[in-house]
Amino acid sequence: MSSEGAKEDCLGWAARDPSGLLSPYKFSRRTVGSDDVSIRITHCGVCYADVAWTRNEHGDSKYPLVPGHEIVGIVKEVGSSVLRFKVGDHVGVGTYVNSCRECENCNDRLENNCEKGVFTFDGIDADGTVTKGGYSSYIVVHERYCFTIPENLPLASAAPLLCAGITVYTPMMRHKMNQPGKSLGVIGLGGLGHMAVMFGKAFGLKVTVFSTSISKREEALSLLGADHFVVSSDPEQMKAMAKSLHFIIDTAAGDHPFDPYMSLLKTGGVLALVGFPSEVKFSPANLNIGMKTVSGSLTGGTKDIQEMIDFCAAQKIYPNIEVIPIDYANEALERLIKRDVKYRFVIDIENSLK
Amino acid sequence: MSSEGAKEDCLGWAARDPSGLLSPYKFSRRTVGSDDVSIRITHCGVCYADVAWTRNEHGDSKYPLVPGHEIVGIVKEVGSSVLRFKVGDHVGVGTYVNSCRECENCNDRLENNCEKGVFTFDGIDADGTVTKGGYSSYIVVHERYCFTIPENLPLASAAPLLCAGITVYTPMMRHKMNQPGKSLGVIGLGGLGHMAVMFGKAFGLKVTVFSTSISKREEALSLLGADHFVVSSDPEQMKAMAKSLHFIIDTAAGDHPFDPYMSLLKTGGVLALVGFPSEVKFSPANLNIGMKTVSGSLTGGTKDIQEMIDFCAAQKIYPNIEVIPIDYANEALERLIKRDVKYRFVIDIENSLK
Repeated sequence: MSSEGAKEDCLGWAARDPSGLLSPYKFSRRTVGSDDVSIRITHCGVCYADVAWTRNEHGDSKYPLVPGHEIVGIVKEVGSSVLRFKVGDHVGVGTYVNSCRECENCNDRLENNCEKGVFTFDGIDADGTVTKGGYSSYIVVHERYCFTIPENLPLASAAPLLCAGITVYTPMMRHKMNQPGKSLGVIGLGGLGHMAVMFGKAFGLKVTVFSTSISKREEALSLLGADHFVVSSDPEQMKAMAKSLHFIIDTAAGDHPFDPYMSLLKTGGVLALVGFPSEVKFSPANLNIGMKTVSGSLTGGTKDIQEMIDFCAAQKIYPNIEVIPIDYANEALERLIKRDVKYRFVIDIENSLK
Repeated sequence: MSSEGAKEDCLGWAARDPSGLLSPYKFSRRTVGSDDVSIRITHCGVCYADVAWTRNEHGDSKYPLVPGHEIVGIVKEVGSSVLRFKVGDHVGVGTYVNSCRECENCNDRLENNCEKGVFTFDGIDADGTVTKGGYSSYIVVHERYCFTIPENLPLASAAPLLCAGITVYTPMMRHKMNQPGKSLGVIGLGGLGHMAVMFGKAFGLKVTVFSTSISKREEALSLLGADHFVVSSDPEQMKAMAKSLHFIIDTAAGDHPFDPYMSLLKTGGVLALVGFPSEVKFSPANLNIGMKTVSGSLTGGTKDIQEMIDFCAAQKIYPNIEVIPIDYANEALERLIKRDVKYRFVIDIENSLK
């Protein structure tokens, strides 16, 4: 199969300005290089990053902007040097599509920390072009940033693993949260939080969900299998959990106090932050007494991503998703802002993007 | 030798009220129990805690208050069940003199985290009495909270190890800062900071001292052996250190911004806090990007204390001390408040408390 880079044969949906409104947009992808994989996209998860960048919340958006970094699909072409993939393979692409491949971070397979890392959309690639994401018919990616999705893992379910999944899996593994019998608190029950609950249960942990909304109780316990549910605004419920948790995964995007959660950690306990509130603030006494730890994390490296996908396939850990057609993308982003989703939208690219 | 608990035969110096002014005070110690060690105190280090509690800064001071929790001396009597110590041994006592001995923390030899831990002075012991510290002629302690000081380690030099030393040693070991060739930043060059520099060099680290005062440069480099010195108020000097440090020990007691230091950490870097500023506050981006860690610590467990003392004896790591008579204690506390000490006052109890 020959490359088709110069032709505007890639159909996507793009935002044209900070209104963020998405509409159809045709563009070209690069020619398939010797180390590249070209992927026919079947599904793409909807992440809050899609809202933030289509609306220029960080001030660096370059329009037209094609969002989407939870990409899954089927290999349609491989470069001459590619050995890991062949046409027809199920594969995924996550939040980055390039890195320097020679720094300490890249050598440690922590490419997500490479200073020259290139974001899957709105990034400036090594050749100077602006990257375009997964709300599109196909993508061309260096094989290093491409992951095998086992045949038994449904592609639609695999999509959210590429960002939401790895974002919580990485700190959980790094801080040894896979110790059966230990206790995990999960703050926030959105796309990331619900994955943390599922990983926690798969690791054999006793999982407590903290949410401001009692309405999430039933689902947390029965659908996701959490052991306890705490309304975080209730001081009595919080107090009852004092010094009871080995670990906390804090997925809350909004501002919230940290001291009430720090006081729930046991000696040596770890709070892993994966959200981006406007600031992190707490009393040093809540850190020093009981030698507690607050640690940050952002997505994960390529080794961890493949490991997590394989773990999910083996354990049948499937994110809870609402599959939508591309025509629904604008409404989906609006609903995401209102947190009206259980728990991840996944766009059915192959059946709706024509 | 018989016990003498009931007699007011212990001479100390006590504060009588929140003025914190110390003056001679006679009191009794408990009878030597079967697991107890009675120690003739030769020296006691002067810690900022002595200022804080003599002046009731935390609102829980019980007068008369005898401060001092960096205690060294010579065993003068042991209980019938004591096997680890004998009369004449050089020993030390640190910041706590009791704990429950049956909780998870105690079983892990992390007695400093025991909920029923008893502070060496101004603590309420299991028998209801208020503990009295090392500004005194002798002390009676359960052998578990007593440490062997090797004969080659001068007693006066050993005293500051019992609080200042263990406070920085514990997080350094916990976060694996003993890896030769890695880089350590030390914020603040007081009693704790100067110990962190010495441990860092003994561990083979490349040590950078951060201080607001250029006046400390020469001593940091030539006396303590630090590799670099950075004036933390100089943005250019700070910027030049961006992403260069594996570890930071933050010993600063006063308020200071955290973001400038967080940005100096490499991927996966750890900032260990041992001071008590009024709050810890930073941007989540400075934590999440580069998966950094902020971790707290407070003194150390009994296993670590003995290990550290043995390490210091073997490596000839001696704190820099200014030996003073007990009559100078009030002036020493005043000078400590003004940070006018290099780097630890040690009271020569045996030659001046009569």
